[in-house]
Amino acid sequence: MRLNHSFVVPLLLALLAGATGQSKTVAERLGYSADSKLLIIHADDLAVAHSEDSASFGALDLGAVTSASIMIPCPWLDEVADYAKSHPDADLGLHLTLTSEWKTYRWGTVESKDEVPSLFDPSGYLWPTEDVAAQHIKADEVEREIRAQIERAFAMGIHPTHLDSHMGTLFTRPDLFAVYVKVAREYKLPFLAVRTPDAPAGLLSALSEKDIVLDSLVVADPRNAPADWPAFYATAIRNLKAGLTEIIVHLGHDDAELQAVMVDHPDYGAAWRQRDYNVVTSPEFKKVLQDNHVILIKWKDLKKLLN
Amino acid sequence: MRLNHSFVVPLLLALLAGATGQSKTVAERLGYSADSKLLIIHADDLAVAHSEDSASFGALDLGAVTSASIMIPCPWLDEVADYAKSHPDADLGLHLTLTSEWKTYRWGTVESKDEVPSLFDPSGYLWPTEDVAAQHIKADEVEREIRAQIERAFAMGIHPTHLDSHMGTLFTRPDLFAVYVKVAREYKLPFLAVRTPDAPAGLLSALSEKDIVLDSLVVADPRNAPADWPAFYATAIRNLKAGLTEIIVHLGHDDAELQAVMVDHPDYGAAWRQRDYNVVTSPEFKKVLQDNHVILIKWKDLKKLLN
Repeated sequence: MRLNHSFVVPLLLALLAGATGQSKTVAERLGYSADSKLLIIHADDLAVAHSEDSASFGALDLGAVTSASIMIPCPWLDEVADYAKSHPDADLGLHLTLTSEWKTYRWGTVESKDEVPSLFDPSGYLWPTEDVAAQHIKADEVEREIRAQIERAFAMGIHPTHLDSHMGTLFTRPDLFAVYVKVAREYKLPFLAVRTPDAPAGLLSALSEKDIVLDSLVVADPRNAPADWPAFYATAIRNLKAGLTEIIVHLGHDDAELQAVMVDHPDYGAAWRQRDYNVVTSPEFKKVLQDNHVILIKWKDLKKLLN
Repeated sequence: MRLNHSFVVPLLLALLAGATGQSKTVAERLGYSADSKLLIIHADDLAVAHSEDSASFGALDLGAVTSASIMIPCPWLDEVADYAKSHPDADLGLHLTLTSEWKTYRWGTVESKDEVPSLFDPSGYLWPTEDVAAQHIKADEVEREIRAQIERAFAMGIHPTHLDSHMGTLFTRPDLFAVYVKVAREYKLPFLAVRTPDAPAGLLSALSEKDIVLDSLVVADPRNAPADWPAFYATAIRNLKAGLTEIIVHLGHDDAELQAVMVDHPDYGAAWRQRDYNVVTSPEFKKVLQDNHVILIKWKDLKKLLN
């Protein structure tokens, strides 16, 4: 498989074997009981393709997802900025972008190319995978670029509610993770980090007790058969534990544009994104959430705890 | 109307009131009689959107258009480069790009931003129209950028057969036109220039007798009703005069992607591009070409005359 995606990498590499010892849980700080099941349903990859934007805006408008994140260097940024400005309550963060993974449709940096040369592959785009990127990118240039992405978001009228990392590139090295945490704190933005038992110690040291950390993360597994998509998500909801969970979905319509962007790549491809869209907007999924007493929250709820 | 498009500007501003006095006509130099009606049917704007690429590749494969040109800074460049490499006989030139005209979907330069700051508007993309661009862009930065676009094409495995100018920005000032002509000659590439009676003298002075110049240019007029599209092109073919003509068409499918790119802009919009595609691929259009003894040629035929 050519790509490992953002949703896989944080799960595998990410962070924190219980290093943060808040005296109160996040649920309690938000006014819920300590045993509450808090859930963010999050759509990744806005601004890549109109098909993804259209599906994600639809799901946000329906409340089928609570949050989403934007890839600032991507071609459809203005469409997303228009949506953000006309939907000031929408919970939109930045999917900080250091890779350009598709075969026929690629992008570069926000920062001037000359200032961040290590971020470019020989063909003149961002590196195609997080692993290859991790072999080449320099932390000081990464810091320049992610600051440029954040500043560009503000300049476009977007007020980001949180940060995360496309394809988990910022979780591949401790120095990159340290930059991510530093910049997020500076902007007073919560950022995606997950409490897992196998988190590398080199990453843990960047975090403090003040950082908000997820307890678990759910993403669809490519080994699921397409027909099992609804059951996968229903099971994930039934198995939710007390604490703070994010389900990351990838929404899109299985149309000509998205099929062309994701050509030769069924994993996280156009049909996959249509399946994710179909599940999160279905009445069955809504009922499972209700039946399991899941409390849906947004990143902006977490952001308030930082200010 | 927010935009004036490439196909309008060369027609209005372009060049040459009979300044080039070749002893033989282009038709004769290509082995045809002096009274031949030579025609290039040319698709603009490849690499902007998958919908445009897909329609243009289809029309090239059918021989419904003879030539096309690519916008190198645009998101779908890799899809077009793949096509160029798998179709080495396809007649593909460069639609040198100094503007980014759509509302929700925009692009920048190939050259590093720091090196060509005058090419960017305050929102960080290329200027939206050729008129506004002409008020700001510096000729030395334009030269850097168009050289970068040509070099990037070669680096991507594209061997351009000709040059032209998206939205005619390079025809808006004599110094920009001089850069265009100089660079085209250096790469031994024919370039779009049209013999019209109203060409500004300041542009004429850049041309020499060795440059190949079109006798006329045809583009669909926005004042045509959609139902009159086939009749417009059939009349244009019937009215062709001896000499070298280019019909510029804008191909695409009237689908969700293209409707979103061209939102709020029916002129040269998604339905327009579908109509252009329907006409050029129709048997009726083919018959009109045959009945009027039109000789279809490519830019690469003209390129051979330069070497």
